Amino acid sequence: MNAQPTPSPTDVLQNGATGHHLKARKLGLIAGSAEPIAVMPQDCAVCRAEGLTARTSILVEAGDRNVVARLMRSSNDLVFEGEIGLSDEAWTRLGLCEGQPVNVRHPQPVPSLSTLRKRVYGNRLGQADFASIVSDLVAGRYSDVHLASFVTACSAFPLDLDEMTGLTRAMISAGKTLSWHRPIVVDKHSVGGLPGNRTTPIIVSIVAALGFVMPKTSSRAITSPAGTADTMETLAPVDLDVEQIRNVVARQNGCLVWGGAVDLSPADDIIIGVERILDLDSAGQLVASILSKKIAAGATHLVIDMPVGPTAKVRTARAAEELSYWLEAVAASFGVKIRVLQGPGDQPIGRGIGPALEARDVLAVLQQRDPPADLADRACDLTGALLELAELTPQGSGAKLARNTLESGQAWTKFQAICEAQGGLREPPMSSHRQIIFAPHAGWLRSIDNRSLAKLAKLAGAPAAKAAGVELHCRLGDAMECGTAICTVHAESRGELDYAMQFYADNGAIFGIKEP
Amino acid sequence: MNAQPTPSPTDVLQNGATGHHLKARKLGLIAGSAEPIAVMPQDCAVCRAEGLTARTSILVEAGDRNVVARLMRSSNDLVFEGEIGLSDEAWTRLGLCEGQPVNVRHPQPVPSLSTLRKRVYGNRLGQADFASIVSDLVAGRYSDVHLASFVTACSAFPLDLDEMTGLTRAMISAGKTLSWHRPIVVDKHSVGGLPGNRTTPIIVSIVAALGFVMPKTSSRAITSPAGTADTMETLAPVDLDVEQIRNVVARQNGCLVWGGAVDLSPADDIIIGVERILDLDSAGQLVASILSKKIAAGATHLVIDMPVGPTAKVRTARAAEELSYWLEAVAASFGVKIRVLQGPGDQPIGRGIGPALEARDVLAVLQQRDPPADLADRACDLTGALLELAELTPQGSGAKLARNTLESGQAWTKFQAICEAQGGLREPPMSSHRQIIFAPHAGWLRSIDNRSLAKLAKLAGAPAAKAAGVELHCRLGDAMECGTAICTVHAESRGELDYAMQFYADNGAIFGIKEP
Repeated sequence: MNAQPTPSPTDVLQNGATGHHLKARKLGLIAGSAEPIAVMPQDCAVCRAEGLTARTSILVEAGDRNVVARLMRSSNDLVFEGEIGLSDEAWTRLGLCEGQPVNVRHPQPVPSLSTLRKRVYGNRLGQADFASIVSDLVAGRYSDVHLASFVTACSAFPLDLDEMTGLTRAMISAGKTLSWHRPIVVDKHSVGGLPGNRTTPIIVSIVAALGFVMPKTSSRAITSPAGTADTMETLAPVDLDVEQIRNVVARQNGCLVWGGAVDLSPADDIIIGVERILDLDSAGQLVASILSKKIAAGATHLVIDMPVGPTAKVRTARAAEELSYWLEAVAASFGVKIRVLQGPGDQPIGRGIGPALEARDVLAVLQQRDPPADLADRACDLTGALLELAELTPQGSGAKLARNTLESGQAWTKFQAICEAQGGLREPPMSSHRQIIFAPHAGWLRSIDNRSLAKLAKLAGAPAAKAAGVELHCRLGDAMECGTAICTVHAESRGELDYAMQFYADNGAIFGIKEP
Repeated sequence: MNAQPTPSPTDVLQNGATGHHLKARKLGLIAGSAEPIAVMPQDCAVCRAEGLTARTSILVEAGDRNVVARLMRSSNDLVFEGEIGLSDEAWTRLGLCEGQPVNVRHPQPVPSLSTLRKRVYGNRLGQADFASIVSDLVAGRYSDVHLASFVTACSAFPLDLDEMTGLTRAMISAGKTLSWHRPIVVDKHSVGGLPGNRTTPIIVSIVAALGFVMPKTSSRAITSPAGTADTMETLAPVDLDVEQIRNVVARQNGCLVWGGAVDLSPADDIIIGVERILDLDSAGQLVASILSKKIAAGATHLVIDMPVGPTAKVRTARAAEELSYWLEAVAASFGVKIRVLQGPGDQPIGRGIGPALEARDVLAVLQQRDPPADLADRACDLTGALLELAELTPQGSGAKLARNTLESGQAWTKFQAICEAQGGLREPPMSSHRQIIFAPHAGWLRSIDNRSLAKLAKLAGAPAAKAAGVELHCRLGDAMECGTAICTVHAESRGELDYAMQFYADNGAIFGIKEP
């Protein structure tokens, strides 16, 4: 991805020399940012000669690989003269061994930065402009500062329809794409923000049981207590390569795998990382984010689950309408059909929050053993919309067909077959430490703060601790006595359970109980 | 500056606990960015419990001091469980000793980030808004990502007059201010971009010799081969504290010191650092940058040297007019009088480029020994404009008075007195390695690429190597034979000289010689 041609005569001219040789040293540092880190001694001769200051970017080359890294200095023996320390990100990209010689020089100018400035000053960008920006940022040539400027510029002057299409296309082209050689490939995406809501494994099972193709790649949690990949991992292996995914889909019509290994729209994760820090989520970037991943995954028909509520990602009906309009318009220019299904976003869907607890909800629905009704209903509604959108079933009959497939046990059979094809169905782990939270007084449950509830689950250990999270015992509107169990907090260690309970003790307002 | 009150009950509620104790370890790493760096082990219990991921900010507390740092992870023994590694910036701000216990928790929400988002979406900000943004960024609560967003937003929707005034006032208030208890305090600023142009020591000497007050604080080079402070340091100590500066000015009416120790408008350096990376320099931020420093330094009358040329900072007459308008309008709202003097920006002023070489030009002008005429002329023009602006001399007579003061030797006498008061006049160092660049053919000198020339001086070692740089032997329009000396490159080591000469060999186009 970062391979570049060897320096042309022009590079040599620009740089005054072809660089300097230094011994690579692994710092054992995970920078976790867009930019890998390189460390050189404060009084390093190469820095003096090249005029390299801290807070500059340098190009580090090893053989035919290279990486742009942010230069920091060492003031003691972290790195010695003649050495360069590298963060794990740079180490991996360069494929280095300890002590291997690397070459250091000024990076070439980043071609798209003038395009970025043009956009900052309010000029519209075309397809080629977005392609150059996205290819530079995927190649690691954008620092956090450049990424933040791009995200800000696209929020200050919102992307128009042509720009959304241009950015989406650029993001698709900058990564891998999957094709399935089928006329209809369905997919589903949730705009998120609602804990629980683990409909995906149910939808895939129903669709695939009906003989239609749904190769589902999902993400792991970034800020939530569980992503679909985290939940599925408690039930079957999800870390499959493209060849393995193809085999599963060929045999079972569907899969439920982690998308990380497939490198679909790698720009998406990079941009999202900065949007999150700035708390900016413009419609245009959200549209490009969703559609670039789904179109790269080969979807032809896509249903979007969009919970709307004060603590969900989309907060108002108006914002939902606007976002739906853009999603449909941009998807249309790629020949992809889309349907947005708004839904309530005021409380979690299902009972569990956390990988294994959500997996148990999924199993309860598929096995029809005391299933959480809201989760089953939402899964059937979304599946129905998808089937109707793809004209695989007559209008108005989709949800009923979905429910029949679920209740007949066909979806459960298919789910087991998919899990076996991915490497074997397994039992989600059980938590070792639990504590019940009781209603402090009688009344009825008037509100749930979904964000604090998600935080409670994370403090209990989710998603890293697979069995950790929160299990809800009541829903909005339920009447309760003093001492009724509201939920159980699950953890894998005493410390994490205590930590979560301390947070709850200090945040009694997660559950709003109105006195009768 | 970063001291904050101890956690209020609300903080404790928000954080679920008052934090975790870890042993501090000095990494010996100079991050060089807005954000100090903290490193914790990848599988650290505190990170799991707090839900801290890489690419997050954490609050590190030691006693009553605290600092917000960017969290990175160690994948080996860089930092052990129970420890936290800190970059030198964090170490200094917290005043730590090795192994001292520190407390780690989620930082409090940064109050001004919602204001920043408001500006991103195109809303105008008031005085209080800028005050909150600037105070957060000076306190180190803004990451590079936030800084870049602020700079971008102020470029996308340019600051209006009220906003420029608001930002300037906020930047002044966020640092120290100097007051001189005199009705007239003059100052001078150069918009920069032109190598050489070291008029400041000459202007201060003339003004102070005439009995007027000019307490000059200057910066060191950031991207140029020399700043005024670097040049002055070859002639006298410049690293004085506020008390020492007051003494020098009380005795000599003027000073020529480094401004770094005085903490005037600390936001300026932070914002400039990001502007440089983005190559964005909006008029509004330039105005706030210049005026905040000068008003904080106590200036009442200010002359601005603005070279205009294709390789200077201000490239066109129109940009110069616009910038002049804003500077005058904003300065007026602080009761400060300002005059902008445009000048040619097509070639260096004086002969030397680099600290000691420029110091020799200054001495040549002050001592009237073969002075570079352009430097003397520019210094007299700027001094004259300043004297007339402050009504210290009748209109039209300022430049003549300045020249008389220079030619009579009074300026040189005053310069020596100022240097003695600062700690003693000294001789600039001589370079140990030199090489002359000759004209490759006959003709006349048609163009000089000022940026490449500055790079040549930097590669030769300037400004860290004080004696290094470039000494010009000709000016635009000069006729030359094949073999005429164009310039001499000065260095303090063989390696640096070779390195500079290699750059020159690859960049023959620094000097454009038109055949006759």
